[in-house]
Amino acid sequence: MTLAEKAPTAAQRIATFTAGLRAQDLPEQVRRTASLHVLDTLGCGLAASALDEAAYVVSGTEEGAGGGPATGIGVAHGLPAAEAAFVNGVLCHALDFDDTHPESVTHVSVAVTPAAFAAGEAAGADGATVLAAVVAGNEVSTRVGAAAGGVFHARGLHPSGVCGVFGAAAAAARARGLDAETTAHALGIAGSMASGLLEFLADGADTKRLHPGWAAQAGITAARLAAHGATGPATVFEGRRGFYATYLNGVEVDLGAGLADLGQRWNTPSIAYKPYPACHYTHAPVDALAEVLREHPLRADEVARVVAFTDKTGVDLVLEPSADKVRPRTPYDAKFSLPYCLASLLVRGSVEVGSFTPDAIADQAVLAVTPRVSYETREYSPRPDAFGGGVRVETTDGRTFEAELRYQRGGAENPMTEDDVRVKYRANAGLALSGGAVSALEDSVTRLGELPDLGFLAAVRS
Amino acid sequence: MTLAEKAPTAAQRIATFTAGLRAQDLPEQVRRTASLHVLDTLGCGLAASALDEAAYVVSGTEEGAGGGPATGIGVAHGLPAAEAAFVNGVLCHALDFDDTHPESVTHVSVAVTPAAFAAGEAAGADGATVLAAVVAGNEVSTRVGAAAGGVFHARGLHPSGVCGVFGAAAAAARARGLDAETTAHALGIAGSMASGLLEFLADGADTKRLHPGWAAQAGITAARLAAHGATGPATVFEGRRGFYATYLNGVEVDLGAGLADLGQRWNTPSIAYKPYPACHYTHAPVDALAEVLREHPLRADEVARVVAFTDKTGVDLVLEPSADKVRPRTPYDAKFSLPYCLASLLVRGSVEVGSFTPDAIADQAVLAVTPRVSYETREYSPRPDAFGGGVRVETTDGRTFEAELRYQRGGAENPMTEDDVRVKYRANAGLALSGGAVSALEDSVTRLGELPDLGFLAAVRS
Repeated sequence: MTLAEKAPTAAQRIATFTAGLRAQDLPEQVRRTASLHVLDTLGCGLAASALDEAAYVVSGTEEGAGGGPATGIGVAHGLPAAEAAFVNGVLCHALDFDDTHPESVTHVSVAVTPAAFAAGEAAGADGATVLAAVVAGNEVSTRVGAAAGGVFHARGLHPSGVCGVFGAAAAAARARGLDAETTAHALGIAGSMASGLLEFLADGADTKRLHPGWAAQAGITAARLAAHGATGPATVFEGRRGFYATYLNGVEVDLGAGLADLGQRWNTPSIAYKPYPACHYTHAPVDALAEVLREHPLRADEVARVVAFTDKTGVDLVLEPSADKVRPRTPYDAKFSLPYCLASLLVRGSVEVGSFTPDAIADQAVLAVTPRVSYETREYSPRPDAFGGGVRVETTDGRTFEAELRYQRGGAENPMTEDDVRVKYRANAGLALSGGAVSALEDSVTRLGELPDLGFLAAVRS
Repeated sequence: MTLAEKAPTAAQRIATFTAGLRAQDLPEQVRRTASLHVLDTLGCGLAASALDEAAYVVSGTEEGAGGGPATGIGVAHGLPAAEAAFVNGVLCHALDFDDTHPESVTHVSVAVTPAAFAAGEAAGADGATVLAAVVAGNEVSTRVGAAAGGVFHARGLHPSGVCGVFGAAAAAARARGLDAETTAHALGIAGSMASGLLEFLADGADTKRLHPGWAAQAGITAARLAAHGATGPATVFEGRRGFYATYLNGVEVDLGAGLADLGQRWNTPSIAYKPYPACHYTHAPVDALAEVLREHPLRADEVARVVAFTDKTGVDLVLEPSADKVRPRTPYDAKFSLPYCLASLLVRGSVEVGSFTPDAIADQAVLAVTPRVSYETREYSPRPDAFGGGVRVETTDGRTFEAELRYQRGGAENPMTEDDVRVKYRANAGLALSGGAVSALEDSVTRLGELPDLGFLAAVRS
C-alpha cells in the first residue's frame, strides 16, 4: 500500500471538507443561521466593550501588538490578525452571553468567528469565503468536542479552548484559502496549541474568558505557519500521542465516526443562543414569567409572590443562600440570583446586559421585589441543555397564574426565533454603537455571503 | 483563618521567588552559567538562521506580526515582544543543539531566554534584570518539570512546551518587573496556555521545534495580561482542575516539595549542554575518538577500523540498518549515523552544524571512511542523561587505542568546560555573523549583568 492509498486521517478528512467548502453550496438554513450566529457574537463583543469588560485585553493589546490589517472590537487602529482574533475572542465571551453547542458543551462562535474574520481581513477575503470559513469552523469545533462530550470537563479541560483551537484553525485556513494538504498541517500544528484549564472555577479567575481568544489566536498562527510551510502531525487526533490520547488519557474516543456525515448533516443550526446574560438556571423561570406577563400585564406592586420552579441543582446555584440572592453584592452575583432576575423583569420589563451594572443591582425598586420570590423544586429533563423551570405568580388581589418551560429557550427543543436573536443583538450592539451603526452592521452581517470584503467591520473599532 | 493567613499556593511561592530575585544576590557560579547558557542558546539560534532552518517562522512572522521593540534572530525590523520570543524560541531549538535539563527532560533555555530577552527589550530593562529573569525562568521550568520527570513524555506531552510556558511566564514577569501578586496571576494564566503534543514523533512534523517558541510567546502574553489586570487561578498547579491533575490525570505530583529549596539550591548549573548537533547516542563515541586523537594524532588513512561501543538502544538508533548509516540520505539521517559522525571527526577534525549540510553528507572523503566503523554492545548506566559509549581504534600498522565515557560530555557527571561552550558558540554564531560580531556578542552576553540595556541584540537581526 503506497502512502497515497492509505486511508486519510481524521485531520486530513476535516481538511478536505474545510478546503472544499463553499458558501453557495450550503443549505439555505445553514447559511442563514451561520450569519445569525455571527451577528449574535458581534453583539456580545460590542456589549462587553461598551461595559469595559476585560479591559486588560484591549490595553494589553495596545501595549503588545504592532499594527496590522485586522479589526479588534473597541481598538482604534488595525491589528495583526492573530492579535485581533485574541481581542475579539475574549470580548465576545466576556459576558458569557454567547452561544453554546449543547452536545459538545462548547462555546463555539467565540473562537471560530474571530479567527475567520481576522484571517479573512488579512487575506482580503470576500464575504462568501468568510461565511464558509465560519461554517467550517463551527462544524469542526462541535465535532471535535462532541466526540468526547462531557469528558473534557470531567478532566478539568475547557472544550471552548481545547476544541475551539481546531475550529479556529479550520476557519483561519479556509478564510485564507489554504488547500486541503496545508489545512491538515494547520490542524496538526493547532493540536500542539490546544489549552485551557477549568481551574478558574476555584476562584473565578479571568482565564475562562481568555480561552476562546487564545484558541482563536492559536488557530490563526497555526494556519499562518502551515501556509509558510511548517508541518503538523497527520495523526494529531488518533495518534497514540495525539490530542485525545494525551488529553483524555484512558478514554476511547472515535472522532472518525463523527466525521462520517461532514458536509451532509450540519451542527451549525443546533448551536444554542443564550437569551439572558445570566446563569442558565434563571432562563426558564424568567421566560415563564415573561409568558405570564404577556397574557396578564401586571405592575410589580400588583404581585404578592412569585414561586419559581427549578430542579435541585438550580436551588444551590440561583436561589440559596437566600440572603445573598435577594441582595446581590456584585453584578456577577446578580447573574446567579433568580430573585434578582425575576424582579428585574417585573419592574423593568427586561433582563439584559444593562440589568447587571453596579447601578442596576442597587436599584431599590428592584430590591423591594426580590424578597417576594420563593421556590419549589420539580424534576426536569437531565439533558445538559434542558434547564427546565417555571413560575407561579400570585397577585395581591388573589389571582394565580402559572407557566413552565420544559426546555429553556435558545436550544433545539425550544429555539429562539430569528427575531429574538435580532432583538438581543440590537440591545447589545446599542450599548456601543449609534442606532444607525447598529442597523448598518446588522444589514452587512445578514448579507455577509454577498459582500465583496469585510470593510464593514471598521464600525466596531473605537 | 483569613485569606492572608492561608498557606501560599505553589504559584504564589514561585511568584515571590521570581519577583524578588536580583542578579547581585545570585551565587557567582549561577550567574556565570546562566550567561553561558544564554550564549549557547543564541549560538544555536544564529546557526539555525544561517542554515535557513524553520524559515517558515521568519517568513510567517514577517507576514503576520506588526512592528515593535523586540529582536527576532534573522528578522530585519523590530517585532512585538511576543512574536520575537516565538521566532527566537523556534530558531534556538530548530537544530536540536540546545541545552537540556536531565531531571525534567526539558529543553529549558529555548523557552526561557527568548521570553526574558523580548520582555526585557520591550520594558527597557537592564542586563541585571534580564539575567535575573533568565535564572528565575530556568529554576521554574526545571522544577515544574522535575516534579513529574518522565511522566509527561509517557502521556504524550512535550515538557519543553507544557513546562516551558511557566518558566517563560516567570522570566517575562521578572524582566518587566512585575510584583509577586501579579506574577502569580501570570503563572495562573500561563497554565491555560500550556501545550505541546509529542505526536510529531509519528511523522517527524515540525511541531517539536514550534513548542519552545509557542511557550515563550504564551509566557510573554500571560505576563502582559497580568500586568494589565487579568487574573489567573492561584491554584493552577495543585488544584483539582489544575495543571498536573488535568494533564497527568491519575498521577500524584507534589510540586511543593521541589519548591522548598527555591533560592538555595540552583538548577541552572545542572542544565546540560549538547556538544554535538546529533543524536545523544553519537556523543560519547565521538568524544572518545576525540580523546584518542588528542593523544595519537592519526590521519584517516592510518585508521583501519573503528569499533564503537554503545548499549543496545544505541544500536538501533545510530548503527543499524548499516547500509543506511554508512551513506546517510539526508542531513537528518546523518545526525543519527554514528559511522558518519566518527568519520567526520576523523577526516575533518570536527562534528558541528556545518557537518550536516547536504554538501557535507555527500563528501566522498568522509563516505570512504564510514564503512570502517563497526560496533560492540556494552552496558552503560540506565540514567536518562548517561548515554555512555566509547571506541577502539585499530591502525593500519597494527596499533590499538581505546577510550570510553561512562557519561556523555555536557551533563553534571562530565561537564563541558566554559571553553568548550565558547568554542561551540563561536562555530555556531560564525555561520551567521562576521568574526567581529561573534566576539562582540560573546563579550556582551558574558557581561550581561552589567549592561545598561539590551541594545547589543541588534547584531542578530538580519
